[in-house]
Amino acid sequence: MTEHNKRLAALREGIDEIDKELVSLLARRAKLTTQVGQIKAETGMPVYVPDREKALIASRREQAKRAGVSPDLTEDLLRRIMRDSYHTQNNRYRCINPDINQVVIIGGAGALGKVFVGLFEKSGYTVDVVERDDWGKTSTTSLFARADLVIVAVPINLTEQVITSLTFLPGTCVLADITSVKSAPLKAMLKVHSGPVVGLHPMFGPDAPGMIKQVVVVCEGRSPQAYQWLVEQMKTWGANIHFSSAEEHDEAMAFIQVMRHFNTFVYGAHLQGEDPDLDSLTVFSSPIYRLELAMVGRLFAQSPQLYADIIFNNPANFALLRRFHQRFGEALSLLENGDKTAFISEFNKIGSWFGDYARKCLVDSKQLLLKADDDEMLRKS
Amino acid sequence: MTEHNKRLAALREGIDEIDKELVSLLARRAKLTTQVGQIKAETGMPVYVPDREKALIASRREQAKRAGVSPDLTEDLLRRIMRDSYHTQNNRYRCINPDINQVVIIGGAGALGKVFVGLFEKSGYTVDVVERDDWGKTSTTSLFARADLVIVAVPINLTEQVITSLTFLPGTCVLADITSVKSAPLKAMLKVHSGPVVGLHPMFGPDAPGMIKQVVVVCEGRSPQAYQWLVEQMKTWGANIHFSSAEEHDEAMAFIQVMRHFNTFVYGAHLQGEDPDLDSLTVFSSPIYRLELAMVGRLFAQSPQLYADIIFNNPANFALLRRFHQRFGEALSLLENGDKTAFISEFNKIGSWFGDYARKCLVDSKQLLLKADDDEMLRKS
Repeated sequence: MTEHNKRLAALREGIDEIDKELVSLLARRAKLTTQVGQIKAETGMPVYVPDREKALIASRREQAKRAGVSPDLTEDLLRRIMRDSYHTQNNRYRCINPDINQVVIIGGAGALGKVFVGLFEKSGYTVDVVERDDWGKTSTTSLFARADLVIVAVPINLTEQVITSLTFLPGTCVLADITSVKSAPLKAMLKVHSGPVVGLHPMFGPDAPGMIKQVVVVCEGRSPQAYQWLVEQMKTWGANIHFSSAEEHDEAMAFIQVMRHFNTFVYGAHLQGEDPDLDSLTVFSSPIYRLELAMVGRLFAQSPQLYADIIFNNPANFALLRRFHQRFGEALSLLENGDKTAFISEFNKIGSWFGDYARKCLVDSKQLLLKADDDEMLRKS
Repeated sequence: MTEHNKRLAALREGIDEIDKELVSLLARRAKLTTQVGQIKAETGMPVYVPDREKALIASRREQAKRAGVSPDLTEDLLRRIMRDSYHTQNNRYRCINPDINQVVIIGGAGALGKVFVGLFEKSGYTVDVVERDDWGKTSTTSLFARADLVIVAVPINLTEQVITSLTFLPGTCVLADITSVKSAPLKAMLKVHSGPVVGLHPMFGPDAPGMIKQVVVVCEGRSPQAYQWLVEQMKTWGANIHFSSAEEHDEAMAFIQVMRHFNTFVYGAHLQGEDPDLDSLTVFSSPIYRLELAMVGRLFAQSPQLYADIIFNNPANFALLRRFHQRFGEALSLLENGDKTAFISEFNKIGSWFGDYARKCLVDSKQLLLKADDDEMLRKS
């Protein structure tokens, strides 16, 4: 046994040495990617180059195979390393439109507003933030008078009210908003301002450390050529731009945001009502269930007002939720009547509707579920 | 520009060299961990040693900090590497009870059954599989007559029926099942067999490449000392054993499994009924929404019978689902009445019920959401 312990200790020392080398490699790699970031900032090359990323990963997967190392392991590690270098190595971006003298972000002290302020600053623009207390001050008035771009980044319930008050912008100023609904703010912007107008929805939370690989929905308002530079600028920040009509966007959001947040809310209400022991629930959960429970839990650590605003925003969505409620009741009746045959036939019908997507999800999600297995938070009981 | 391109090409070559070194490091590391795995198999040391893992990660985080490398990045990489080495380097496990001459797994050709067959084989046990066609054969009868352990691993709807037919097992034989409900199978086993009985629920799907770090629920039946070796054996496979009564287990499962699968089913029915364009939904989704949609999609690529069996299994669960349905309707009425104040007050009440857990979820889930951002499948539109 002592012999075994000695051998084990020696092997562990060897492993530790290799892991030390790994950290050194990371430090060396970061130095190189910082330089790449600098060149990209100088030349305005996009930060995220999908083809380079693909080629890099493909070569290392090949090498891994030859070396008897798992190609999937290699790819996962490289992706994680690249995510880090994207976010830490980019302190400067190219300024796409040096003719812009003044950017104003209303609500720029808020979580998502701050992300935009930071990105504009790193790109060499002059950015000022206007908050509630600044309203009506002489300095604020003169700030707006010289603004080339005004972005409304206030909470959803204040968006329209703030937009409606922007009657004094220069005719050439681009007016934009970043609210998670698009039809109403876009209409309000077009009404109050005669110049260029564009609606934006950055599809990420304030926790995202930047815009790299994130989807930003762009809803054209008026004079697209006047804000083309802004779209290009977001591309240099790494954004994946998706053009859409405000209506199409809002319809999709009803499914994605409203349904999801409301269902999560009800799940929380249900748990509170049933009052199970949370600790014992998590003990019995596999990582993917814990992830789900965590997604419910996290909602209730956030602003009730924000979620009320999102959920109550569009009464047209209530009918969608009502139909979900009805379908839930219908499916439940199948259970209460013990009608397994009807349940299975429904199941098959839905499966046909999903078609290949269902099989694709099954295959693709395997790796994802394994990743959840890695996660220490989801492991803790 | 050409100058920039040259510098960029040189930097990229440097990055490629570092990534090549990374793959070589992985190959060298795998050789060492294979040897560690062999020593552990010889001595019966547990595969997963939490303290060693903690210490290893803590030292490398420290080193990373000193080297200006992100400690979180370092930890994520090491965890991913360790997951791989746990699963690929363990081809042998110590045999905890060499006195066991015959293990029989009924339904051992099924997905989860196979995992057990593999683990017993890697631990040096003689394992035979009995499938439907083997039933009643002379060879099967003599197999059961010399069995020291019989594990029922058939689909949930056949479990009780199969158990009830096991009237002929030797009195010293341990009888176990691995169904996802525990009360009914345990009762049936205690009734049909006078020897040692234990109910098991391995809380992972057949995609998991082993038992390392996975939770296995153990429900004591009769004569625990007779199957203590089995519990110890699962520990050497890396399992995280959780003892529970069958009732407590089944109650938790009603929340975790039944609620979840049924809600997912209804969500699928809702999507089919509303018939949105799936492609355009995913375009508008951030990675975490796509994960959710993928979890819905994957259900419908699986066996309708399996999910029907799980959901219909216990009529006591229907009342729980009915109460969820009612709460959904009540919350929806708040929306339809435009009662934001009541919604917010409900929200706060639920938040108090979740207590610290909610804040913990919010903090812990940030890293997880970033991990979803890494995932290529969730990035694809």
